[in-house]
Amino acid sequence: MIMEKGISSVEVLPSKSSQVTAVKVVVKEPETKQTQRGKRVGFVLVHAGAGYHSESKAKEYKHVCKRACQKAIEKLQAGALATDAVTAALIELEDSPFTNAGMGSNLNLLGEIECDASIMDGKSLNFGAVGALSGIKNPVSVANRLLCEGQKGKLSAGRIPPCFLVGEGAFRWAVDHGIPACPPGIMATRFSLAAFKRNKRKLELAERVETDLIQLKKRRQSNEKGSRVMCRTCGRPSKANDGSRGGDQIELYSLENDSGTLDTVGAVVVDQEGNVAAAVSSGGLALKHPGRVGQAALYGCGCWAENTGAHTPYSTAVSTSGCGEHLVRTILARECSCALQTEDAHQALLETMQNKFIGSPFLASEDGVLGGVIVLRSCRCSAEPELSQEKPTLLVEFLWSHTTESMCVGYMSAQDGKAKTHISRLPPGAVAGQSVAIEGGVCRLESPES
Amino acid sequence: MIMEKGISSVEVLPSKSSQVTAVKVVVKEPETKQTQRGKRVGFVLVHAGAGYHSESKAKEYKHVCKRACQKAIEKLQAGALATDAVTAALIELEDSPFTNAGMGSNLNLLGEIECDASIMDGKSLNFGAVGALSGIKNPVSVANRLLCEGQKGKLSAGRIPPCFLVGEGAFRWAVDHGIPACPPGIMATRFSLAAFKRNKRKLELAERVETDLIQLKKRRQSNEKGSRVMCRTCGRPSKANDGSRGGDQIELYSLENDSGTLDTVGAVVVDQEGNVAAAVSSGGLALKHPGRVGQAALYGCGCWAENTGAHTPYSTAVSTSGCGEHLVRTILARECSCALQTEDAHQALLETMQNKFIGSPFLASEDGVLGGVIVLRSCRCSAEPELSQEKPTLLVEFLWSHTTESMCVGYMSAQDGKAKTHISRLPPGAVAGQSVAIEGGVCRLESPES
Repeated sequence: MIMEKGISSVEVLPSKSSQVTAVKVVVKEPETKQTQRGKRVGFVLVHAGAGYHSESKAKEYKHVCKRACQKAIEKLQAGALATDAVTAALIELEDSPFTNAGMGSNLNLLGEIECDASIMDGKSLNFGAVGALSGIKNPVSVANRLLCEGQKGKLSAGRIPPCFLVGEGAFRWAVDHGIPACPPGIMATRFSLAAFKRNKRKLELAERVETDLIQLKKRRQSNEKGSRVMCRTCGRPSKANDGSRGGDQIELYSLENDSGTLDTVGAVVVDQEGNVAAAVSSGGLALKHPGRVGQAALYGCGCWAENTGAHTPYSTAVSTSGCGEHLVRTILARECSCALQTEDAHQALLETMQNKFIGSPFLASEDGVLGGVIVLRSCRCSAEPELSQEKPTLLVEFLWSHTTESMCVGYMSAQDGKAKTHISRLPPGAVAGQSVAIEGGVCRLESPES
Repeated sequence: MIMEKGISSVEVLPSKSSQVTAVKVVVKEPETKQTQRGKRVGFVLVHAGAGYHSESKAKEYKHVCKRACQKAIEKLQAGALATDAVTAALIELEDSPFTNAGMGSNLNLLGEIECDASIMDGKSLNFGAVGALSGIKNPVSVANRLLCEGQKGKLSAGRIPPCFLVGEGAFRWAVDHGIPACPPGIMATRFSLAAFKRNKRKLELAERVETDLIQLKKRRQSNEKGSRVMCRTCGRPSKANDGSRGGDQIELYSLENDSGTLDTVGAVVVDQEGNVAAAVSSGGLALKHPGRVGQAALYGCGCWAENTGAHTPYSTAVSTSGCGEHLVRTILARECSCALQTEDAHQALLETMQNKFIGSPFLASEDGVLGGVIVLRSCRCSAEPELSQEKPTLLVEFLWSHTTESMCVGYMSAQDGKAKTHISRLPPGAVAGQSVAIEGGVCRLESPES
């Protein structure tokens, strides 16, 4: 088994759009080889959010990524499948009070925690998801259980089992299936409650400024008898011309969504049989409207996993993070998976992030497009093609890419003693929301002796 | 303006899979031309569900499709945009007690109505959706309002407006935005309550049979000391070998989801400026688990609308109906839209239904794949290219396709006095879930005098 974090050079590429700066990190091919026979193999890549990670927080984020990798690898070593391993990684990430998933999630407008999570199995192509779920410590467990129950076939009386449940119904289903309820007070942490109070105060101030501006505008309009701008769709008076519905002054009171609390978490795994799985979990945006569901719950948007098939030479697994609405509109997880079927994984991912995300016509009206992805693709091949006796190995390419300031990742193979972690950052001068960072590596896994 | 329902021949095509029989209905090019200048133009195509429509119910379904078309055209004639017109059509379809959307929706396991709906605007590419929404008479109105509010830019304090809300949170948002609450008792109809009681009785019987079978099996297993089959993913004892978790006998107690109550409704519209919009609304499966969200709420799955752009020569609008889980896994609305960018719309849709729906690897484990779509695509062109003085016209191609027994559609242009309706059926011998019916027509709309 060989593994190497393949960062060897950074270059700034000219891009098609003047708004986009691409940072390319060349992935080195591994140069050494150490085979360890007779062990279970597999690989995991996790992330603790695409957003902004200060140096002071970096240590804790790296630590939780390391633990998440270890949990997944323990599962793989015990012979568990990719879906079980990816769930184990997610549970560790959800349990951290520092990430915006499970415990310590962002609070919504009413001060409640509502989580989104989903999981996809590359072998069966089944999917399980929960949205706006309260009162369950590990939302990913419910998503995984939905996936598992869905694989058992129809329910009694020919009913189709659900793959996506939301709100109170999702909570009831989880409890009915033996997943314990968790009192809401336990999931909110000192950090999340303090952030909620700060955000609420900012919101009150912003709304006060907005009210003042509206009144000022009304007075001006009645003086000038100016015509009102109507909304293109509903015909009601539009606030669009006010910028952020209250002018630039309100930007001073922007919430903390862009400074570390955007930390949706995710993981991608390949097991010893070459099956891939992906999962994602998120507490959503700070002060979101109750009932708001983001990309982490949505098919094709939060995660994607697809084993190699008739039309897919590679197995691929993807998990996304960032601004939910941006990731939804671009169906980014599936888009990345499709792109990764071409030969050069690095180039395919870079082009997808540039053209299908930052440059997407679906996000043309956005000032900046914030997101990040972790991807993994694998295929069976011979390590030394000239040695026909050699057992085929599993070639795993893993990459992460983000348009946010930074992204914290960890990765590990079943033969490693411990996980490697890394905080990827945009280079100095690159603008978050308009530039892309991309890094990754390659790992060869030799099939275990049967 | 010319319009003609272009069914001229039916042929059974050999297909790649022996399971698939394709029914091709050749669409005739229009042969006559009657221009009406100075009027607002536009076109609407609606459907009242892909499922099974008995002759006795056909009249009412056609009637509601006709009314829905008229409502949309009235909006277009009043100068409304495509999103307003498509919403007006959907409201009419939701208000019918015969369709499974809004009023008269299927009841869930607890006897409640929970609706899904979504809308997409081809011009702005914005999207609005609600899932598992109770207590609102017209779920599509809330989806449209979410779309509209989303177009106004950020909320105070830089918050991103939600595009997808579920459950109680969606209800609160709707009421806060002036959409009146509707007592649940009003939305359930005599028909839906009677169906609920019949289905509940069937479920009780099925569960009783299932319990008996499980006990019988346990006794056999303890006698034979047979090994238990474990679930591939969760490791718990699997019921997969029981067929529908209770053997074939339970199929006798199948619910009424396959006999008319699968009637998700939808509409696609193109307005006089060539802007497209699509919408979908559904009460979901009968006796679904509370909180279950189906394709009608999900981005890319329930509806899609995309104006012509740099990479899209045609404007396209799609709305889907059928088994939610099948439509979700194949992201069918977006898949159809992408396919419709090739030259032959009919062939593109047929191939999509055959290869990306019935033949999808994502549905490989399904016995039958049930769904239907209505699609519309338009492009600007000159009706008589040799006459350079002639005003450019809007060429609208409209198609419907289904793998269900039947599908009820209606269509109308702004110049028509009344809508045309049609119940499309699979030909005799074709198997629902394995065969495709496809029909449609072409319509030329001349731009109004400015």
